[in-house]
Amino acid sequence: MLVVQKYGGTSVGTLERIENVAKRVAIARDEGKDLVIVVSAMSGETNKLIEYAHNFSKNPSKREMDMLLSSGERVTAALLAIALNEMGYKTVALTGRQAGIVTDNTHTYARIETINTNRLKKEIESGNIVIVAGFQGINKDGEITTLGRGGSDLSAVALAGALNADACEIYSDVDGVYTTDPRIEPKAKKLDFVSYDEMLELSSLGAKVLQNRSVELAKKMGVKIVAKSSFSDNEGTVISEAKGDNMEEVLVRGVALDRNQARVSLRGVDDHPGVAAEIFSKLADNNINVDMIIQNASNDGKTNLGFTVPQNEIEQAKEVINSFQGDVEGADYDESVAKVSIVGVGMKSHSGVAATAFTALAKNNINIEMISTSEIKVSMIIDEKFSELAVRVLHETYGLDK
Amino acid sequence: MLVVQKYGGTSVGTLERIENVAKRVAIARDEGKDLVIVVSAMSGETNKLIEYAHNFSKNPSKREMDMLLSSGERVTAALLAIALNEMGYKTVALTGRQAGIVTDNTHTYARIETINTNRLKKEIESGNIVIVAGFQGINKDGEITTLGRGGSDLSAVALAGALNADACEIYSDVDGVYTTDPRIEPKAKKLDFVSYDEMLELSSLGAKVLQNRSVELAKKMGVKIVAKSSFSDNEGTVISEAKGDNMEEVLVRGVALDRNQARVSLRGVDDHPGVAAEIFSKLADNNINVDMIIQNASNDGKTNLGFTVPQNEIEQAKEVINSFQGDVEGADYDESVAKVSIVGVGMKSHSGVAATAFTALAKNNINIEMISTSEIKVSMIIDEKFSELAVRVLHETYGLDK
Repeated sequence: MLVVQKYGGTSVGTLERIENVAKRVAIARDEGKDLVIVVSAMSGETNKLIEYAHNFSKNPSKREMDMLLSSGERVTAALLAIALNEMGYKTVALTGRQAGIVTDNTHTYARIETINTNRLKKEIESGNIVIVAGFQGINKDGEITTLGRGGSDLSAVALAGALNADACEIYSDVDGVYTTDPRIEPKAKKLDFVSYDEMLELSSLGAKVLQNRSVELAKKMGVKIVAKSSFSDNEGTVISEAKGDNMEEVLVRGVALDRNQARVSLRGVDDHPGVAAEIFSKLADNNINVDMIIQNASNDGKTNLGFTVPQNEIEQAKEVINSFQGDVEGADYDESVAKVSIVGVGMKSHSGVAATAFTALAKNNINIEMISTSEIKVSMIIDEKFSELAVRVLHETYGLDK
Repeated sequence: MLVVQKYGGTSVGTLERIENVAKRVAIARDEGKDLVIVVSAMSGETNKLIEYAHNFSKNPSKREMDMLLSSGERVTAALLAIALNEMGYKTVALTGRQAGIVTDNTHTYARIETINTNRLKKEIESGNIVIVAGFQGINKDGEITTLGRGGSDLSAVALAGALNADACEIYSDVDGVYTTDPRIEPKAKKLDFVSYDEMLELSSLGAKVLQNRSVELAKKMGVKIVAKSSFSDNEGTVISEAKGDNMEEVLVRGVALDRNQARVSLRGVDDHPGVAAEIFSKLADNNINVDMIIQNASNDGKTNLGFTVPQNEIEQAKEVINSFQGDVEGADYDESVAKVSIVGVGMKSHSGVAATAFTALAKNNINIEMISTSEIKVSMIIDEKFSELAVRVLHETYGLDK
């Protein structure tokens, strides 16, 4: 049985915690598992290095940033290997390059292209526990690249996929995926299982256990992820394909909240082809991240267009909108809204799931400003001040605390 | 004109100092020089990482130590490149691997085998200042290796040799090589020039400006070294081949002191072939570093044998000697002696240079316990408490303060 384990920055944040991780790895080894362990930099290290670089330049060369930032994971990898060797376990630490991780040329945000598993397989076969420095690879020219924030998750999933591992365990300081944020709703329950698609929604909507790119890759490669805490022995949450049985159940898996939303509503937008496209292109050109988009049916050649952006990008969005004065009759902004979403596979095929949410919020005098639905979620934009209340109401409405 | 510059840990010890180094490099660039800059880890970093490793293991895997320790130089290299880029200078940072430094397999103390200069030349030709992470390379299997303490000096000299550079400037917090340690003799003078051989003696005898392996390599490859301070604009000391003129002069270049010496004197050692060899082999097997060795002419099949070892290895040395009881009549130890040496090319060919030293010490009631001479030095073992006095007396005797 081959298992890839990934330990995040908090899990390896001190020497004591690295020792703790070594003990966990040793236990898994004693159970007879073949192991590939992916590690992040000790928490704080990457930020420290970024700060150092910004001391010299607001916009440091990305190639050099990659050389700089890739050092932290190497330190952790080497230390963990040293700790395990000392405990009597044959262990070898590999850099991204040595682990065969080849990426494209996009420094600081590289995408993995291939993994050459020869060395990894050789090390596993020779009885080594293999520690891999996460977050990094090299491109075809031998330049060091990094995979962007949270990139160690991606390293772990990609390695698990390439090695056809039985599972990819992602360790952090949270013991799994919850029905909602426990800081908002103490009755939130840890989920035993969540599908890739649900996880993608929960993750982008605020559940910070797993990086989205990793979940997408896991889905693509069919890697079973287990999200666990490195500080407890709790079971964790399995993330994999939706199980057949559940597909037909009405199932709200969780309630997600994103407070960092501002709403833009455009009235009387010229409904000839291309206007909406032009607006969104210009927003994209200005690096404004548009999230939810809603367009109502056209009326007399005019349409209403609504969308949300991160709160700190609203001023820039206003500027872009102002440049479209001729094409837009009026614009209305709400700078402090929140998006609350219910997520669950099979939701769409059961009428009434969304209605239940609307009714519950209405009963609590929470006005819904925008609604967007997909196969597996219903998202509602509400006044930010009702955020916590809305989460608790929906959590109870769907019986998630049971 | 191609110059290799190397900046040590103290010179890049803080962000401010890295900025300072960037300015120095920029000045050299403005003078039209092609530049390869070798950097050490920020001072304290390597020791911190070693401490981390020793937290887990008294004897950590050397392969993993190399992955661990090579990270510090990469950080400095990337930061310096970022600083120079920001100042408008085209700069690229390279790891040891990317700089083409190929070593043997001796982890933590690797020897450079070849340097593949293709990448380096390409970067120089394309107008880049090239920053190289010192102290590291890879072996033929692609494993990261390090060159041992002070290895960045070695990187710099090897690169200068391989690229046929016009000079290799080694920057530290000392502005050159002195006639003796200025902390002992404030009248010590900085030397404008010192030959490779003299430097080798001065270095192993306590002058800590340059690592010995680097000087040996510079001699072998004919690399002209300039030892300078990164904190001043002083001229520094040139280290190269002895100049023809000086060969015939009586010239004492400097006085060196090594306090870390303990003396072992063996009386009545059986003078049949192999006994001395056996003793020294067994000392070597026990990792005891024997420095000075003196054997007197044989007398009635017995000989007297004297040698020195580092003070912290004397107890081990005693154990070894005790195992030779049958072959040795008596042993005498002095655990606190010092070695004071006068160094200078051409010394040997002028009788009287050594005698002058003996006379000067005698006048000051300093007893000489052992004497050893080579082509370019005379070393004397004396009671440690006379160390400073001996240095000052000899410094004055040879007029080094003038």
